[in-house]
Amino acid sequence: MKLALERGFYFPSCEIYADAHAGFWEYGPTGNNLKNKFIELWRRELLRRDDMIEIDGSQIMSKSVFVASGHLDNFTDPIIKCKKCGATFRADRFITEKTGKEIPELLSGNEIDKIINEYKLRCTRCSGSFHESERFNMMFKVEIGPSKEEAYLRPETCQTIFVGFPRIFKTMRGRLPLAVAQLGKSFRNEIAPRQSLFRLREFYQAEIEVFCNPNRLNELPKFDQVKDTPLLLSIKNSSHSVNAEDAIRKGYLPNKLVAYYISLLSLFYSKTGINMERTRFRQLSDEEKAFYASTAFDFEVETSIGWIELVACNYRSDYDLKRHGEISKQNLHVIDPSDNTKVLPHLFELSMGIDRSIYSILDHSYYEDTEAERVVLKLVPQLAPVLVGVFPLVTKDGLREKAQNIYSELKLDYSAFYDESGSIGRRYRRLEEIGAPFALTVDNQTMKDDTVTIRYRDTMLQERVKVSEISVFLDANK
Amino acid sequence: MKLALERGFYFPSCEIYADAHAGFWEYGPTGNNLKNKFIELWRRELLRRDDMIEIDGSQIMSKSVFVASGHLDNFTDPIIKCKKCGATFRADRFITEKTGKEIPELLSGNEIDKIINEYKLRCTRCSGSFHESERFNMMFKVEIGPSKEEAYLRPETCQTIFVGFPRIFKTMRGRLPLAVAQLGKSFRNEIAPRQSLFRLREFYQAEIEVFCNPNRLNELPKFDQVKDTPLLLSIKNSSHSVNAEDAIRKGYLPNKLVAYYISLLSLFYSKTGINMERTRFRQLSDEEKAFYASTAFDFEVETSIGWIELVACNYRSDYDLKRHGEISKQNLHVIDPSDNTKVLPHLFELSMGIDRSIYSILDHSYYEDTEAERVVLKLVPQLAPVLVGVFPLVTKDGLREKAQNIYSELKLDYSAFYDESGSIGRRYRRLEEIGAPFALTVDNQTMKDDTVTIRYRDTMLQERVKVSEISVFLDANK
Repeated sequence: MKLALERGFYFPSCEIYADAHAGFWEYGPTGNNLKNKFIELWRRELLRRDDMIEIDGSQIMSKSVFVASGHLDNFTDPIIKCKKCGATFRADRFITEKTGKEIPELLSGNEIDKIINEYKLRCTRCSGSFHESERFNMMFKVEIGPSKEEAYLRPETCQTIFVGFPRIFKTMRGRLPLAVAQLGKSFRNEIAPRQSLFRLREFYQAEIEVFCNPNRLNELPKFDQVKDTPLLLSIKNSSHSVNAEDAIRKGYLPNKLVAYYISLLSLFYSKTGINMERTRFRQLSDEEKAFYASTAFDFEVETSIGWIELVACNYRSDYDLKRHGEISKQNLHVIDPSDNTKVLPHLFELSMGIDRSIYSILDHSYYEDTEAERVVLKLVPQLAPVLVGVFPLVTKDGLREKAQNIYSELKLDYSAFYDESGSIGRRYRRLEEIGAPFALTVDNQTMKDDTVTIRYRDTMLQERVKVSEISVFLDANK
Repeated sequence: MKLALERGFYFPSCEIYADAHAGFWEYGPTGNNLKNKFIELWRRELLRRDDMIEIDGSQIMSKSVFVASGHLDNFTDPIIKCKKCGATFRADRFITEKTGKEIPELLSGNEIDKIINEYKLRCTRCSGSFHESERFNMMFKVEIGPSKEEAYLRPETCQTIFVGFPRIFKTMRGRLPLAVAQLGKSFRNEIAPRQSLFRLREFYQAEIEVFCNPNRLNELPKFDQVKDTPLLLSIKNSSHSVNAEDAIRKGYLPNKLVAYYISLLSLFYSKTGINMERTRFRQLSDEEKAFYASTAFDFEVETSIGWIELVACNYRSDYDLKRHGEISKQNLHVIDPSDNTKVLPHLFELSMGIDRSIYSILDHSYYEDTEAERVVLKLVPQLAPVLVGVFPLVTKDGLREKAQNIYSELKLDYSAFYDESGSIGRRYRRLEEIGAPFALTVDNQTMKDDTVTIRYRDTMLQERVKVSEISVFLDANK
């Protein structure tokens, strides 16, 4: 957190104001670069690799969308309010904290009130007693135009994909299975946002929705490309280390389509620098599953704040298109030419939290090198906010101008950073703390033979490289 | 519009529902690619070229921010409501439409009511008379948490930059002038949204805020790099075609800092495929200027719906930091080491509308080739949603497999598109309509000498290129 705040990764929103709200954070310049590179890697390794299509829709959506999706009725948290001081708590978390009991999110109001009475739970601020518990809808409402028509900030990006499906399928001449992706903001009015990027009220999702024919989930030739992918599955508290093909054969994963996308996701994360040995695909129990999911796996990562969910992999069946078809009175069936049937597509989704992914990558990359007395972010070069630093050893004898020329040559095509202030050692340290894998230094020898030193972040080793070959080196290592 | 709807550029949000609201549009897969490439060009040609830093902040911001910015009091449109049917109109536009009179946006309520009475204006729906005019605040309000704390969706992205300035300046070891950029959504509850991407209620802005020392606006060595940039300036209805240096000397532009960023912006747009002869930097009159601006130029483009504003270039003076300092009670002054003074930075901004830019690029690229009976989008390769199509001439004799192999080799690094359905002519047409500059076709000769034809969108000429040299060709032409 200290590094994040001091090195421009992220910081609280509106922090100069007393009425700043919890659950809103800003990406500083360093964090923003990391996030943008993460998104570019997501586009490359998931979208382009699988020929997915990507759309980008509005965050404010009509009320009908959330009537159909069920969010207006079901997207609620139980809350309890103190009769005396008005303090409000999320009931299930409050009970767990006070009693140690694990409380399912969907417990009814009566049952919550019973437990509150049974354990004689009181307000932690003023010891007052509580009103009866209520359900609090976590969507943000907005009013459109002078006539104040009701609309909502979307609580998940995927609703845009479902509602736009008829046009997307038609204009893109879609065929099942068709994967449609979207990156964008979602909004949840959390009662108790916490731990910086982990539980936000406004956050980035990257969701992939695979529209598929439920009768053809095992007819997927491209599965062969990923069948050997190693997967760590956690099912009913036992761990299974298997490849994708065995995961299906042993019944851990239901079909090739699910196994294919889970494998693709696993391959993607293995390129982000996350330590895959500290990850798992955990099958959710019936109590944990979202109301629309029939099969559900969470991709989880072990971090310094515990295991956290980065991606929800849900088989949503035909729940979404059925409901949107009913409420909009549109026919959302399509023809699958492979078996010439009319089908209401089912959905398998990979719902990724970007901010949590960034948090986990930073967590797994952070390294305190006590011997060298330095802090290093061991980011993979593809995600480094700065790929290469360019330093003149000293600013005299033409070294500054030479370094600035090299920097100018690089800066349009690479994330480069020029620095001439402070000792060379301090400049290396600052680069290491933001995860820059390479530093180029212009020294006196540069003026003689047109070579610079290139220094590696992790090993601190240096070697000389010709100025004319810097681009070739960076292209091979980015 | 027809092309945009049918080829996946953009389409109305929530269109399957009867309660879809005007002013919300989605980018389809093609439009999304174009937009993402536009953003990448913006990052390259403005941000990296000028060593700017980029942040990404929350869209929901605290009430105090908009007390300070003046939006709570001043960001309003005059409206009139029919006494009989309740229909609501934006007063200034309504009067202009009915009377032909140009009405300034900031006309007082009394004066509006006077004109309504004088011209005996009635509701166009039911001929009813109007209530007294009101002011309608265009910000969307949201309520945070169970205690319903008041917050707003930001009406301009730059507020994030102003409020985050103290931390950004400190953690990035900033020096004036410091340019901070942000790309993101803003929201305005327009009374009469219109013309698809032109006036939206939810839209993308790319804003650049240059924090500067007002006493050193002419001390900018890097101005020399752009001094010969040709600019088209429109000042008090006369046009001036001058270079940046002369624009200052003749007093059209106030100083080097303003001229430098206006030149950079002009160079950027010249790379987007917009016809620069149909653009101008128009100085705003005192009535047109935003309430915070001292000097203001709009970068405008002539399109098929008339001249539209793409970028507002405002010298905002110290209005923003002064107000945020007062309301937050923080000291927002910084030290400028060049003259060792304490200074409250002034701001010059380039406030770019992304959606309007995309609209204008499509408008200027659209070309009906009547001779060849085709529609072509003559997009520059850097912005093409698809850079290259890969087609097998026929699907037999191994051509399909060969084409698929080539496609697989390209698709991770380039926006490539594989298509085998329909005649080769129809496949070319589809590519031309989405602006893909190149098409590769695998034919029988490919199987003999490992060459493919490469076809140019604009000239329709073809030549043969070795499969092993496709990447080199695309790298040189993207």
